[in-house]
Amino acid sequence: MALLTDFGREGHHAGVLHAVILAAHPCARIVDLSHGIPAGDVELAAWTLRWARRWFPPGTVHCAVVDPGVGSARFALAASAGGQFFVGPDNGVLSYALADAGRARLVSLPAPKGAAAPATFHGRDVFAPAAARLSRGEPLAALGPPLDSWVRLRERRPRPLGPGRLEAEVIAADRWGNLATSATAADLARAGIGGTARIAVGRAAVRGILRFYAEVAPGAALALVNSDGHLEIAVNGGSAAERFKAARGTRIRISS
Amino acid sequence: MALLTDFGREGHHAGVLHAVILAAHPCARIVDLSHGIPAGDVELAAWTLRWARRWFPPGTVHCAVVDPGVGSARFALAASAGGQFFVGPDNGVLSYALADAGRARLVSLPAPKGAAAPATFHGRDVFAPAAARLSRGEPLAALGPPLDSWVRLRERRPRPLGPGRLEAEVIAADRWGNLATSATAADLARAGIGGTARIAVGRAAVRGILRFYAEVAPGAALALVNSDGHLEIAVNGGSAAERFKAARGTRIRISS
Amino acid sequence: MALLTDFGREGHHAGVLHAVILAAHPCARIVDLSHGIPAGDVELAAWTLRWARRWFPPGTVHCAVVDPGVGSARFALAASAGGQFFVGPDNGVLSYALADAGRARLVSLPAPKGAAAPATFHGRDVFAPAAARLSRGEPLAALGPPLDSWVRLRERRPRPLGPGRLEAEVIAADRWGNLATSATAADLARAGIGGTARIAVGRAAVRGILRFYAEVAPGAALALVNSDGHLEIAVNGGSAAERFKAARGTRIRISS
Repeated sequence: MALLTDFGREGHHAGVLHAVILAAHPCARIVDLSHGIPAGDVELAAWTLRWARRWFPPGTVHCAVVDPGVGSARFALAASAGGQFFVGPDNGVLSYALADAGRARLVSLPAPKGAAAPATFHGRDVFAPAAARLSRGEPLAALGPPLDSWVRLRERRPRPLGPGRLEAEVIAADRWGNLATSATAADLARAGIGGTARIAVGRAAVRGILRFYAEVAPGAALALVNSDGHLEIAVNGGSAAERFKAARGTRIRISS
Repeated sequence: MALLTDFGREGHHAGVLHAVILAAHPCARIVDLSHGIPAGDVELAAWTLRWARRWFPPGTVHCAVVDPGVGSARFALAASAGGQFFVGPDNGVLSYALADAGRARLVSLPAPKGAAAPATFHGRDVFAPAAARLSRGEPLAALGPPLDSWVRLRERRPRPLGPGRLEAEVIAADRWGNLATSATAADLARAGIGGTARIAVGRAAVRGILRFYAEVAPGAALALVNSDGHLEIAVNGGSAAERFKAARGTRIRISS
Repeated sequence: MALLTDFGREGHHAGVLHAVILAAHPCARIVDLSHGIPAGDVELAAWTLRWARRWFPPGTVHCAVVDPGVGSARFALAASAGGQFFVGPDNGVLSYALADAGRARLVSLPAPKGAAAPATFHGRDVFAPAAARLSRGEPLAALGPPLDSWVRLRERRPRPLGPGRLEAEVIAADRWGNLATSATAADLARAGIGGTARIAVGRAAVRGILRFYAEVAPGAALALVNSDGHLEIAVNGGSAAERFKAARGTRIRISS
């Protein structure tokens, strides 16, 4: 079982997920993938799950609760795909992982009934209980009626600008200020862009696609393919997010 | 075993609690309820334990270490109540949970002896070892002599202002800036306050008690009964703490 | 298994370490010692491991990944010392723990091969897999060729200034702003410095070495020997780091 939320770790919400899961399945193995997704940032959670998913063992139940629409008419999902399980709200948080994991079977989880039922913490009341049942071995079909369609986040695909040229965008800045972009190693190869590429962010630019941070002097900027397979702009020992004043959505231009 | 402290997760202190528990009881299941209580905020820890306690399975040992008076003459406690165990300093941190859990048996834990004994980390030297012994199945009575009285935090109860009117106060702001208040759903029902109530904070006010955040437009304020059963003031997608400049102790007036 | 990194908990990197370890060793017990080391702060990680190590049970595998030189020619280490195991980059992060643990056997871990191999996340690709193999019981010698020397961080030893006088320095400030110094209880004893010592930080000074924070009034400064055995400067209920404008490297003078 892997938990991914925007609950933070200051309050009791993440700990209560553990409690509910252990109460239902005392032997569950629970990994806190992250509870530090910025509040309501469904897309970053979707990227995080996409990147982390494949490192978890077969049978892992991923429970992803970034759910600003909790209590509203949005569906609650449980899915089986690529030998793992996925539980979360139907707001796109699972969609990148499901797109990668291959053919998926989905069911809709029932919401708590009654006007007095709590409607603000479905992590505790809907998702963790469903995840615990799956981790205990209950079949997906026992959790709810099948569902044929679900919300998919837009894929941020790089745009060809001509031979050997791509426009991409920043998709996430990590704790160090490294900027992951929407261009993957496969995108670069397909566009014929190699190690001597020029990556421009606004008026600034970085030359070359290197392999690791210490290839440049401390404080110097560089680009590399990061551990998730995305082109990344970084500053050795510093923050590229600050240096380039960039955040999700900032456009970059890559030329061979 | 559930751990609740103000140690943070940057340093080694929370990890050392795990180490000490595993050294004494290699099969212990340990949940980090939170290590993010603000330094020395005994009352917030007491609320957190009150709210989280009932989601943990029977037999859980709650180890709560928010202990600004560590080393002083305050007692160290271990308790059995409501089918669970509680370990922590006698400064009130356990008192809300014990008040809810029903009839309690308590013992006093001995402090490390000798003038050279470390006196600043009883989490490691007193509380975690006691919690490990309880989680291993040792009887409460083996841990120390019985204790009849313990420190109880003041209960922040709403004050009736007349028919259909209550004065309550903010008790906690969470990571999103949602303001939990001292008025519970039961308080509201007893005062005859229903879904059309008016909740005033200073000169601002919110109309209606809703069920979930997305019932109002993004950026709009609302009130609802939160997942812990308390009246909460929130802003959909924003921070009520900032909007209303409110924190623990801020008075609110509720009228039907 | 105990993990110590500068990955933070916001992103997926720490969770992916858990995933990789569980995929290789489904029964591994994993403790997050800390993922909150400031980015690239090898020395603070080394102190943290030194202080925490001895509280973990025999056989624990410590996996410490603070690795600003990831991908470069630095070695990757696995070690056996004092009945525990240590895995991490050869940049000094393990060196304080190894210095304390006694006679060590070390091997060098092979780096991922090929120009296309990811070179920025050896936590996932080198260190966690090696730690999982050790925790599963594989012999150290199976992980790589033996290594005779490794990078050692400079020891920050107090400097005698005359009879009953030492110059020491701040080595770390914790979450509360308490200042750990390089002078240990043993250093004080050796220099004949007792409980009535005077500790000067710049122009300010603290008189006496006490046992716990609550021995002085709230807001007052004090010195004590902390739970790791180091002389510490603190403010009861406040921050000594702010009060004395001190950080790692700030000199202090101790006189009996």
